[in-house]
Amino acid sequence: MKLLETINSPAELRKLPRTQLTPLAHELRHFLLDSVSKTGGHLSSNLGTVELTIALHYVFNTPHDRIVWDVGHQTYSHKILTGRREQMHTLRQFGGVSGFPRRVESEYDTFGTAHSSTSISAALGMAQAAKIKGEQRHAIAVIGDGSMTAGMAFEAMNNAGVQEDVNLLVVLNDNDMSISPPVGALNRYLARLMSGQFYAAAKNVGKSVLPGPVLELAKRFEEHAKGMVVPATMFEEFGFNYIGPIDGHDLESLIPTLENIKKLKGPQFLHVVTKKGQGYKLAEAEPILYHGTGKFNPTEGIQPAKAGKMTYTEVFGNWLCDMAAADKRLVGITPAMREGSGMVGFEQQYPDRYFDVGIAEQHSVTFGAGLATEGLKPVVAIYSTFLQRAYDQLIHDVALQNLDVTFALDRAGLVGADGATHAGNYDISYLRCIPNMVVMAASDENECRRMLTTAYRYEGPAAVRYPRGAGIGAEILKELTSIEIGKGEIKREGKEIAILAFGSMVAPSVTAGAELGATVANMRFVKPLDVELVKRLAADHDYFVTVEEGCVMGGAGAAVAEALAAEGIVKPILMLGLPDKFIDHGDPAALLAGVGLDAKGIAASIRQRFMSGEPRLVVNNT
Amino acid sequence: MKLLETINSPAELRKLPRTQLTPLAHELRHFLLDSVSKTGGHLSSNLGTVELTIALHYVFNTPHDRIVWDVGHQTYSHKILTGRREQMHTLRQFGGVSGFPRRVESEYDTFGTAHSSTSISAALGMAQAAKIKGEQRHAIAVIGDGSMTAGMAFEAMNNAGVQEDVNLLVVLNDNDMSISPPVGALNRYLARLMSGQFYAAAKNVGKSVLPGPVLELAKRFEEHAKGMVVPATMFEEFGFNYIGPIDGHDLESLIPTLENIKKLKGPQFLHVVTKKGQGYKLAEAEPILYHGTGKFNPTEGIQPAKAGKMTYTEVFGNWLCDMAAADKRLVGITPAMREGSGMVGFEQQYPDRYFDVGIAEQHSVTFGAGLATEGLKPVVAIYSTFLQRAYDQLIHDVALQNLDVTFALDRAGLVGADGATHAGNYDISYLRCIPNMVVMAASDENECRRMLTTAYRYEGPAAVRYPRGAGIGAEILKELTSIEIGKGEIKREGKEIAILAFGSMVAPSVTAGAELGATVANMRFVKPLDVELVKRLAADHDYFVTVEEGCVMGGAGAAVAEALAAEGIVKPILMLGLPDKFIDHGDPAALLAGVGLDAKGIAASIRQRFMSGEPRLVVNNT
Repeated sequence: MKLLETINSPAELRKLPRTQLTPLAHELRHFLLDSVSKTGGHLSSNLGTVELTIALHYVFNTPHDRIVWDVGHQTYSHKILTGRREQMHTLRQFGGVSGFPRRVESEYDTFGTAHSSTSISAALGMAQAAKIKGEQRHAIAVIGDGSMTAGMAFEAMNNAGVQEDVNLLVVLNDNDMSISPPVGALNRYLARLMSGQFYAAAKNVGKSVLPGPVLELAKRFEEHAKGMVVPATMFEEFGFNYIGPIDGHDLESLIPTLENIKKLKGPQFLHVVTKKGQGYKLAEAEPILYHGTGKFNPTEGIQPAKAGKMTYTEVFGNWLCDMAAADKRLVGITPAMREGSGMVGFEQQYPDRYFDVGIAEQHSVTFGAGLATEGLKPVVAIYSTFLQRAYDQLIHDVALQNLDVTFALDRAGLVGADGATHAGNYDISYLRCIPNMVVMAASDENECRRMLTTAYRYEGPAAVRYPRGAGIGAEILKELTSIEIGKGEIKREGKEIAILAFGSMVAPSVTAGAELGATVANMRFVKPLDVELVKRLAADHDYFVTVEEGCVMGGAGAAVAEALAAEGIVKPILMLGLPDKFIDHGDPAALLAGVGLDAKGIAASIRQRFMSGEPRLVVNNT
Repeated sequence: MKLLETINSPAELRKLPRTQLTPLAHELRHFLLDSVSKTGGHLSSNLGTVELTIALHYVFNTPHDRIVWDVGHQTYSHKILTGRREQMHTLRQFGGVSGFPRRVESEYDTFGTAHSSTSISAALGMAQAAKIKGEQRHAIAVIGDGSMTAGMAFEAMNNAGVQEDVNLLVVLNDNDMSISPPVGALNRYLARLMSGQFYAAAKNVGKSVLPGPVLELAKRFEEHAKGMVVPATMFEEFGFNYIGPIDGHDLESLIPTLENIKKLKGPQFLHVVTKKGQGYKLAEAEPILYHGTGKFNPTEGIQPAKAGKMTYTEVFGNWLCDMAAADKRLVGITPAMREGSGMVGFEQQYPDRYFDVGIAEQHSVTFGAGLATEGLKPVVAIYSTFLQRAYDQLIHDVALQNLDVTFALDRAGLVGADGATHAGNYDISYLRCIPNMVVMAASDENECRRMLTTAYRYEGPAAVRYPRGAGIGAEILKELTSIEIGKGEIKREGKEIAILAFGSMVAPSVTAGAELGATVANMRFVKPLDVELVKRLAADHDYFVTVEEGCVMGGAGAAVAEALAAEGIVKPILMLGLPDKFIDHGDPAALLAGVGLDAKGIAASIRQRFMSGEPRLVVNNT
């Protein structure tokens, strides 16, 4: 690591002779493998961008020139070369380096990313700002072929193509798609661009190989059709100057190409081909396995996980297969999250009813709505944080028409190592305000299964939220049974204090309730709220406490307060949930404890508010 | 109208001989002009789709075959031909025919639309459902060139292109773009497709005109490059079979073409060129003026409006120009709503700082975020209902990074004739749960201007919501003054009852408060809420009432309840706002009165809850 240790900033990198860059890439790749195998994190994508990262920082004058990394999980090399090498052992840990670029972490992180396909919009904004301010700088978006399939990237391309005088470079980091099936037409198109390399060939033919008269003919066509006879790539049709495809692991082609591009004006599009996992045979062979890893021994590779507690994702995946077996109307939809959403088994068993629509949350929901109009029963599996991308579609296309679409919301609440960008904190608030929605929060694995069945059988839009990771270890019953809509249950009887708990907060609330002698209800439904249960609890308890793993603002606690107000019941209420701030990455249990959402914290908050010996509440003067 | 009167369903249309269709189109166009000039509504787009509508219903077996109309404001001919001719005089009125397709209105309205760019996703769902169910039917999406620029349409195209065995037809209704400047690369591309008609020409050359050896060469290329040497349109690259462009006003080309397409398998793309306002000279000349109209005399045309009360849209437009004059960092962004958002003047005065990004809400927000990272001060002008399309971008790209982007939210609350699809009912709930956001609701025109100044000067994300249409007629002061963040004001002093009103509900609340002798506060800020004011009001009032033109669930009233809970204050509270249901189109004032949100309704609700002589509240047993 002799070379790498001398590089503490891109300025130092730029002092190296070109001949040193290949050895540097070698060291960097070793460092990455060593580091990620110790901390866990994203591996395949980072091994794939070593040379590209070196080349970009070598050719461009960062941080004066701006690099925006789409998704940003491929930025470990970038972090290492921009002064964070020695912090990499803290990756994705509380207080440590983030797994994504963050503006607060480094001036080289020009734009925080994590959700896909934002980079072209952001870089275009930077490029246009430079133009408005009269500054000379380049803005570069580095975006993967998967991210290019999201509508947002297309919107940005469509807009950038007419902003002709901005210094914008889009680098398409095209992974070797031969290893996994293309899910969209664009990916298929890119594969064709790559395999044929027809572009360069056709240009040559058009300009030199064709015999005289034909060349003349071609020229006349070019005048008429403005270059369309020589086949243009889709990116040129969008107003970009297209260069490529070039080998993204070959510094000898990356660097001269980037140096040439640097001299050009207007929107540029560089198509770079890389290989996920490049340089580590095990990851090259199984890039999906090595996409996001825990700790592992690099020599042995990732070993099959020991059977542990079942995750909610697995609960969903099993339920989906079982329900599909029971009902042939079921259709499963994922916006590019087959593995993450637990749909591998479903795809294998029901390939004709499985739809991976690409990174296309908006389409995933309205495609489901279209299926529902014809009497099919679509299940859209989507992370809570990604449903934010399809909020309008959920309102305008599904809920307004009261269509029968089931939403399986994984990763609701805090998500741990992925941090604030991926937090599923807002779904209770943004879903329950929409008419016709049924919203449930699962408190254990079996209830999750029952709620999915309930949502599925309900002939309208319904969502089940469940947390990331493993549950509490509840026994899962094989039958597909549902729960009465809008009915909660009492988990323990107590007195004075009623704790109304939602989803993942039921278990710690039961512990806290036992300690305090309080009644604990598992409310199950955020919407429709069990108002009868609320009234019953109000009748024989003095104090209400609501607990949820979601933002307090507008959340389930607010729903209880609204119900009390609507019923004309006046009752002291303490609302516990996630605070009104973005919460950084870290260990999920520690993060929850940090905001008082473990049993201890819940009990302490209740004691402080209602059992402190001080006046129990501010008495108003009525 | 002899012919038209005989057509009460598409089945009857299909019995007509082809020779009768042109006279029918003539009658239909006259009926449209007559009808819309009496009711108001969309005119230009409907005049443009007369022949296309006739042709689609003539060739396809509706309703067995499904037509999904993108946006749906061009469906008046469709409504007239599908049994709603005699109801057209009730268009967009309470209880009358909707201005958009609605599933509850007719079996021919297969999918409710209004927000743009949903049609391909929905039709693909229908086509895929037919395949899964083994049914023979066509699903047809009719989409305008403007709608094609939204990312969602691209996502659907990308997904449809790989669903090779579905009977999906996308009809691109390409309006004559020469009349208004193209705002995106795609529109420019379509114009090129149209003007050169190069496609057909090039095909001819490739297949017959070229001399023998060159033809051979071309063929060899075709083998190598899979058809890419003969220039393919972008739509073919997406896996569609492209046909066109054809004249969308010529039934003699529309009908045979559609009949041929009907026989083809897999995703088809028909490019139809139409003219907005076709057949009515005044609308042809000024399609934007005649896009959405009030009542007018068809002979005279639309007359210049008499100066009336200023709309909030105009208040925003004027403010934008004034603030741009004062601060050269200001940049104005609109997702294709230049006229609707009041930005015509700004564009004229500040063309270099004006960005119409197309129908691309997601991009509009993140493009703004990119500009903000470079120290510019973007103002995103967007309807409340359309911000739903950019919810994730607001959270992930703006709020999480605490970037300085100002959101001007027009059409907040009920919108009247456009109905439930356009209702801005949810923004308070979906915005206030996001950390870092500042959210204001304007109670009059001058306050709107001050709040915009406040939001603009605040160095973080801030939104100002204001209703559709005219305000209360408040005098507007020229100076650009701001309001202290998080500070409300008392509008009238009363006793016992405190009415905490937000935005448009301040004026009727003041009237109601005067009647009841209640205190009325203009809270101004939904977030941060003026907690000090809440505490002060709690100290000397017995009852709280919150009033907002937004959904009660998770809304501003819930914010007050949360604040009371957090402060340990127990107080009877009545939350007034929009009920948990979708509200149909109608006169805005009547709609508000219908849900009790006029002065009379507010007073009545308060009386009933707190002044009925019955026990004033359910006393709990503490």
